[in-house]
Amino acid sequence: MNRKELIDQIYSKQSFLCVGLDPDLTKIPKHLLQLDDPIFEFNKAIIDATKEYCVAYKPNLAFYECLGIKGWEAFQKTVDYIPEDCLIIADAKRGDIGNTSLYYAKTFFETYKCDAITIAPYMGSDSIQPFLSYDDKWTIVLAMTSNDGSKDFQYLESGNQPLYEHVVEKCKEWGSDENTMFVVGATRSEDILKMRKIAPSHFFLVPGVGAQGGSLEDVVKYGMTQDCGLLVNSSRGIIYADSSEMFDVRAKKEALKIQSEMQIHLKRFL
Amino acid sequence: MNRKELIDQIYSKQSFLCVGLDPDLTKIPKHLLQLDDPIFEFNKAIIDATKEYCVAYKPNLAFYECLGIKGWEAFQKTVDYIPEDCLIIADAKRGDIGNTSLYYAKTFFETYKCDAITIAPYMGSDSIQPFLSYDDKWTIVLAMTSNDGSKDFQYLESGNQPLYEHVVEKCKEWGSDENTMFVVGATRSEDILKMRKIAPSHFFLVPGVGAQGGSLEDVVKYGMTQDCGLLVNSSRGIIYADSSEMFDVRAKKEALKIQSEMQIHLKRFL
Repeated sequence: MNRKELIDQIYSKQSFLCVGLDPDLTKIPKHLLQLDDPIFEFNKAIIDATKEYCVAYKPNLAFYECLGIKGWEAFQKTVDYIPEDCLIIADAKRGDIGNTSLYYAKTFFETYKCDAITIAPYMGSDSIQPFLSYDDKWTIVLAMTSNDGSKDFQYLESGNQPLYEHVVEKCKEWGSDENTMFVVGATRSEDILKMRKIAPSHFFLVPGVGAQGGSLEDVVKYGMTQDCGLLVNSSRGIIYADSSEMFDVRAKKEALKIQSEMQIHLKRFL
Repeated sequence: MNRKELIDQIYSKQSFLCVGLDPDLTKIPKHLLQLDDPIFEFNKAIIDATKEYCVAYKPNLAFYECLGIKGWEAFQKTVDYIPEDCLIIADAKRGDIGNTSLYYAKTFFETYKCDAITIAPYMGSDSIQPFLSYDDKWTIVLAMTSNDGSKDFQYLESGNQPLYEHVVEKCKEWGSDENTMFVVGATRSEDILKMRKIAPSHFFLVPGVGAQGGSLEDVVKYGMTQDCGLLVNSSRGIIYADSSEMFDVRAKKEALKIQSEMQIHLKRFL
């Protein structure tokens, strides 16, 4: 899915919601555990319930990998099931030396046909560039993340700029706003504005709204562009809103609630 | 495998060689491609040929993941096949927010029973600490890597110290030399000395000798400690030394050659 198609989806659905598919056998409704593939059945119900209200799904690979082969089978079935009008973001946070990163790019862009992958930038240019060589695919680089530990290194100042700004500036040289996005945590809204100044046209993937404490209103205020420029992720707030047999009904309600807020913001800003 | 057991293995085998298991269907000997699981058959032959001369194996996950389910099956069989006296390093370069990193730790330490995993430090404390909570397991943090792109961020100076030194200092607070190692590329030998000054007793996992141009002699000169303190990795130089049906015989010869050099260094330094 290219930039224009993504923006069209955002206008059409009046939403910039990304639903995080982080299925955890200890948290999904108990009645699903009797089924052959509880992880896929959970995801399928969540996707059916939320697909009208979101433009992207973001399965986090940790939750699939930890189940071994069965987890990867569930991941495969999940990405196959996600509708074509939704961006599929493999939240894998990969990155290795050049010839090895190429194999990670193959994994997610070819083997699993995802549209996007999250990337850890620590290893620099040759760890990121193999992902950028694909047409109509997205490399989403960790810049300023939403977790507590983000302060340890991402905020270290070098030449009066925090590390995350160096990451953004370098990535702007290597790619463009047609193939690169940045992960920008919602939990430090004042810094979203700084990020927006150095990357005025790139899409930001924004985790941390909801369970982690970030505010949608602040994210929009500091981060929205004339093309929207935002994908705001919610995982736990939607998928674990309810643990009964009605979990999908409740997930739908939560997704609709966020989409309705997003619609107001989109109408006001665009 | 704990630190004492690792050091005992190094003394016993007179080797600090780690063999990188990076199987690539386009590079492994053609005759293997007719078999049911060419990747595992390749690894099995390499392990049989080299296990006397190395103390660790390091499968890089990118080469398994890109093959989908079949790749993960080959990975599982490979880690099951590696002898107990060898450290198994999952070269996965993972890292995520705390509750997600925990699932990566489960994946590699529980599901696949590896001894060690490589970690990207960009997300900070909570992305690394879940791995450190396991007894007798190792967290190997990317510090100063061997690739060209390492200069982009790892060498950025903050408070007169490059980023990689900040990474090492923080990781020393979170873990100890009993559960943490650092990735230190062999390609900048003068910087190994700097690393050794700030981490005098930690093991370093050193890639970049051989195909990438690093010198074993320099690595030993600048990095060896009284407990050895080094695991030097070779991947392509051993596993792709030959592409005929005799690939394992040649791999054995290359591993023996490196082990013989290591024996001389161990005798001289320890």
